[in-house]
Amino acid sequence: MTQVDHTRMANAIRGLAMDAVEKAKSGHPGLPMGAADIATVLFTQFLKFDAADPAWPDRDRFVLSAGHGSMLLYSLLYLTGNKEMTLDQLKHFRQLGSLTPGHPENFHTKGIETTTGPLGQGIATAVGMALAEKMLAAEFGKKIVNHHTYVLASDGDLMEGISQEAIALAGHWRLNKMIVLYDSNGISIDGPTSLSDSVDQVKRFKSAGWAAELIDGQDQQAIAAAITRAQKSNKPSMIACKTTIGYGAPHKAGTAKAHGEALGEEELKAAKEKLGISLEPFSVPDDVLKAWREAGARGAAAHKEWDEQFNQLGSRKRAEFERRIRHERPQSLAKALRAHKKSLLENPLNVATRKSSEAAIEVIAAAMPMEFVAGSADLTGSNNNKAKSAVAFAAKAPKGRFIHYGIREHGMAACLNGIFLHGGFAPNGATFLVFTDYARGAIRLSALMGTGVVYVMTHDSIGLGEDGPTHQPVEHLSALRAMPNMRVFRPCDAVETAECWELALNRIDGPTVLALTRQNLPQLRTTAPNDNPCSHGAYELVAAQGDAKVSLFASGSEVQIAVEAQKQLAERGIATRVVSVPALELLLSQPAERQNAIIGNAPVKIAIEAAVRWGWDAVIGHDGEFIGMHGFGASAPVKDLFKHFGITAEAVVNAALKRV
Amino acid sequence: MTQVDHTRMANAIRGLAMDAVEKAKSGHPGLPMGAADIATVLFTQFLKFDAADPAWPDRDRFVLSAGHGSMLLYSLLYLTGNKEMTLDQLKHFRQLGSLTPGHPENFHTKGIETTTGPLGQGIATAVGMALAEKMLAAEFGKKIVNHHTYVLASDGDLMEGISQEAIALAGHWRLNKMIVLYDSNGISIDGPTSLSDSVDQVKRFKSAGWAAELIDGQDQQAIAAAITRAQKSNKPSMIACKTTIGYGAPHKAGTAKAHGEALGEEELKAAKEKLGISLEPFSVPDDVLKAWREAGARGAAAHKEWDEQFNQLGSRKRAEFERRIRHERPQSLAKALRAHKKSLLENPLNVATRKSSEAAIEVIAAAMPMEFVAGSADLTGSNNNKAKSAVAFAAKAPKGRFIHYGIREHGMAACLNGIFLHGGFAPNGATFLVFTDYARGAIRLSALMGTGVVYVMTHDSIGLGEDGPTHQPVEHLSALRAMPNMRVFRPCDAVETAECWELALNRIDGPTVLALTRQNLPQLRTTAPNDNPCSHGAYELVAAQGDAKVSLFASGSEVQIAVEAQKQLAERGIATRVVSVPALELLLSQPAERQNAIIGNAPVKIAIEAAVRWGWDAVIGHDGEFIGMHGFGASAPVKDLFKHFGITAEAVVNAALKRV
Repeated sequence: MTQVDHTRMANAIRGLAMDAVEKAKSGHPGLPMGAADIATVLFTQFLKFDAADPAWPDRDRFVLSAGHGSMLLYSLLYLTGNKEMTLDQLKHFRQLGSLTPGHPENFHTKGIETTTGPLGQGIATAVGMALAEKMLAAEFGKKIVNHHTYVLASDGDLMEGISQEAIALAGHWRLNKMIVLYDSNGISIDGPTSLSDSVDQVKRFKSAGWAAELIDGQDQQAIAAAITRAQKSNKPSMIACKTTIGYGAPHKAGTAKAHGEALGEEELKAAKEKLGISLEPFSVPDDVLKAWREAGARGAAAHKEWDEQFNQLGSRKRAEFERRIRHERPQSLAKALRAHKKSLLENPLNVATRKSSEAAIEVIAAAMPMEFVAGSADLTGSNNNKAKSAVAFAAKAPKGRFIHYGIREHGMAACLNGIFLHGGFAPNGATFLVFTDYARGAIRLSALMGTGVVYVMTHDSIGLGEDGPTHQPVEHLSALRAMPNMRVFRPCDAVETAECWELALNRIDGPTVLALTRQNLPQLRTTAPNDNPCSHGAYELVAAQGDAKVSLFASGSEVQIAVEAQKQLAERGIATRVVSVPALELLLSQPAERQNAIIGNAPVKIAIEAAVRWGWDAVIGHDGEFIGMHGFGASAPVKDLFKHFGITAEAVVNAALKRV
Repeated sequence: MTQVDHTRMANAIRGLAMDAVEKAKSGHPGLPMGAADIATVLFTQFLKFDAADPAWPDRDRFVLSAGHGSMLLYSLLYLTGNKEMTLDQLKHFRQLGSLTPGHPENFHTKGIETTTGPLGQGIATAVGMALAEKMLAAEFGKKIVNHHTYVLASDGDLMEGISQEAIALAGHWRLNKMIVLYDSNGISIDGPTSLSDSVDQVKRFKSAGWAAELIDGQDQQAIAAAITRAQKSNKPSMIACKTTIGYGAPHKAGTAKAHGEALGEEELKAAKEKLGISLEPFSVPDDVLKAWREAGARGAAAHKEWDEQFNQLGSRKRAEFERRIRHERPQSLAKALRAHKKSLLENPLNVATRKSSEAAIEVIAAAMPMEFVAGSADLTGSNNNKAKSAVAFAAKAPKGRFIHYGIREHGMAACLNGIFLHGGFAPNGATFLVFTDYARGAIRLSALMGTGVVYVMTHDSIGLGEDGPTHQPVEHLSALRAMPNMRVFRPCDAVETAECWELALNRIDGPTVLALTRQNLPQLRTTAPNDNPCSHGAYELVAAQGDAKVSLFASGSEVQIAVEAQKQLAERGIATRVVSVPALELLLSQPAERQNAIIGNAPVKIAIEAAVRWGWDAVIGHDGEFIGMHGFGASAPVKDLFKHFGITAEAVVNAALKRV
């Protein structure tokens, strides 16, 4: 082992961070400089990792919740010997195509556990990772799954509300292998945090069931001692590390000026001189680099030992573990869903799609009982996503696969990301569709990172009735469809619901929203072909007799209205077809030829959806008819509401007659 | 004063709540039954209000954060003598058109301070109200503004992350006239809160700078004593009231069964018998009703005294106060903005629209220095919404009119709602556009309630550059445009920015998002007519020479691209016009004739926006050309990004040439 003074090791981070931000003329030098001591202690003495294999399943997770301090992470990846993170990458910090974007992107750069930058997401996602570790360890044993989840969090992370949801869950679940290092530098963009904050974070975390203490974050001994204590705790631990932002910068250290911009030539030079770092940009002394590389290889032995343990598992168990980590679905799933659809055709299920979804979930959970992890933000009985066989997860019931998240939609969504990113599970979470608003920060990260999580969003329209406009989504379908890499399915019956669940589970490069009704719906489908018509976003459900004069497009609960209107129009001799559109944005991403074939060229096009029109003009044209919502909903029994807002077969028929 | 036993008073609430929920076969009886003692003590002994005038500006505010317990509020309104809240309204609980919707709607029912139901919003909005009280008192004196803000919050409210943002702000600002009564019944929909929670709320609030204590919430003396202590505290106070959900229901009390559904005939009868309430539905004994009505009139004397104090103000001050409470803008505003626009034409401002916005704010703040309340979620220097003259608000600087919210977007948005609802201010808050995702729960309530708040959302596209895709909005414009009653302006230059600010400030029945650039833009406008062309959402900025072959539609930073492309196309003899579209959804809500006139009938229509296409087909058709984003952004300097994503004049010209 090369013996190099801790401070010189830490200064390597500081130097690289300063240089990269300076070269980019953009970025955040202050956090890496302040937190370099914490990171050095963690990465050289505690973190279990093998730089040669950043995908080793039992590595400790390190989440830089303070994503703006990305140069800390990039420096660490380079120093510890991550193969792709070359010095050249650091020199192209924040440039197009480099592996060193402004904020860490796990889908882009190997060795990064999750995408951070939007504050609070990292710590909340890490809770999901630590939860997954606990669940997977309970299943495969501690010889195979036994690692920590470390988080470096900033003042800003802890101001965001999502952090409260996250720490409440971690405390409740006693995720004692989660250790948060809080970089308490007391500075945010506007200035000292005293401008807007006086929370005692140690007391706050303790109130949520954490072990918490305050230390000097520039003192390597104190850091090491605190991490050692944390590793022994039976609670999750928060170590508030008092640090100086921009540590070493003679004029800017400890001020907001060190936070989010290059230090400037002069200050950089003075900082390097003060710290004893070479003025040569991007230089790291040979012995320091060697010591860092040794730190990066430190875990190789543990990795080897793990490989041996893993090989001692039976071949079946090994294959299962590997399949799960790859997010590959079991072969039995497709078969089981096929059988389920067949049985629906024989025994139609005329129930709410949240209930059809429950029926599908029973089949899915039977096929993948330990990997299908469901949960709800305190609406379990309404969301219907708990399989009968599912047991509630708890601190003392780590084999439970149903998670009670409490009334914490944002925390839940971030947890789902963390569970998926950890690997081993197909997570879904549930609440009312309207409350995607609360979770949108984390939902967007699902889409950006491409996590294959499923959002089971019930009560998907005014169809929820009496709870009124605060609980009735009207713009949410549109707002979610607008999000890149998001799939939004709104099935119209039990068969489509099963098909959409299948598509959702097989989608492992992006999230899916299932928008489901509260109210009962008739089963409309009489066929269930293997090629799954929902996979194109839309398909002709009812053909016209002869050349169609009218095309009716609808999703979810409004498809039955379209089908009823079709009958009435056909009776009047007006050839009408019905296109079911379970996924509007998916239809619009199909090749032009297929889109045209599905949309057709009937002179009258009418869309029916109990939501806003926004987006539908792509199908019906700006001069098309839209039967739906034109504002917020109202509180009343469901039957009154559809009538009140004019979303009825009668209205569709009248609109068609007016046009034909 | 009619002397009636406290319990009989409280039981009147319980009886009405049980009966209304039973009749509707829908609703939440448990909270009103459990919290009836708290409400009775508060409304009969402490709350300063005059049922005859629910709009009295100096009334105490009472916010039912646990909005699902709406029957508590409706019962109180009826019992205390609110004129419109008749017994008949209670009998039509949750029915179409009644004043008693599922969750309280302040825009619908007089005597309700804010719309609640989405958990956590009430407590966070109340912080804004208490803040407004403190600011307004500092300006008009304690004889005119001197009231408390009470909140009844549930377990669910305190699980939501927004509650942490709210209590951190209230603690920091030492809003000692805010008193939260926490209905700690330990039950949520899924069952006992121990399923998902083990936070010690008293300790948590203390860590945020609150006074907090735990009492027996069924003990009227304990409640009164705690409120008395809270009124004397120099901190905001939280009183954790241990209660029994569904208090009085023999079998369901203390269980989730009492939470969200009718008790059922049998249990209701048994509960009434146990409590000694008449079995006759909706009956309140005469003496009890009389005592309640006296409680409702209790504040009349204070109200009269206040009127006298108010009349002693100078007539100018009185008029100012009344104008402010009415949300009427000062006449000087329009004049000042007119002069500002004129000066822009003389001295063009070629800067980022966030800087143009700053210039407009200087003018606005000068015209309404004490009512224009700006603030930022820790991005003050980037959002540019702090006027030079503005002083930071602080516990000890209550005349400050710039609020440092810290990194709390959701809490900020709810605060804005609360400030507006309290009355007296024109509030705006700022962050990056991408972080509207974090605040969407409260933003939606702005739209639903129709609060005239302004969201100053800068860094509105990939134009923010190096921070990368986590910070670059692409779907946000569309997601916000889809929201009913939301106005989204994306001005293209300094003149439009001033015009949009004017429209935003004059909009007092709904919120406005101003989407502003980080990067510099040329001033394109050469005229500034009084009728403000932005008011129609779009207008022809550059006319074609002859019959237009091509119409280019663009917003914000892409209008300059359209203008440049127009020049190049015109040079090639292709008659092209440019339509600036500062507010797409506003254009689409214009009468058809005006829409058609603005959109025109050029055979080639091209829209240009550095965001997703979703929504634009309404203007350009599904076969129109769209130059914009097709997925998430990337981290790089701005000039590289527009080129990389093909959002350039060259791309527009090529697309046009391909079509013409």
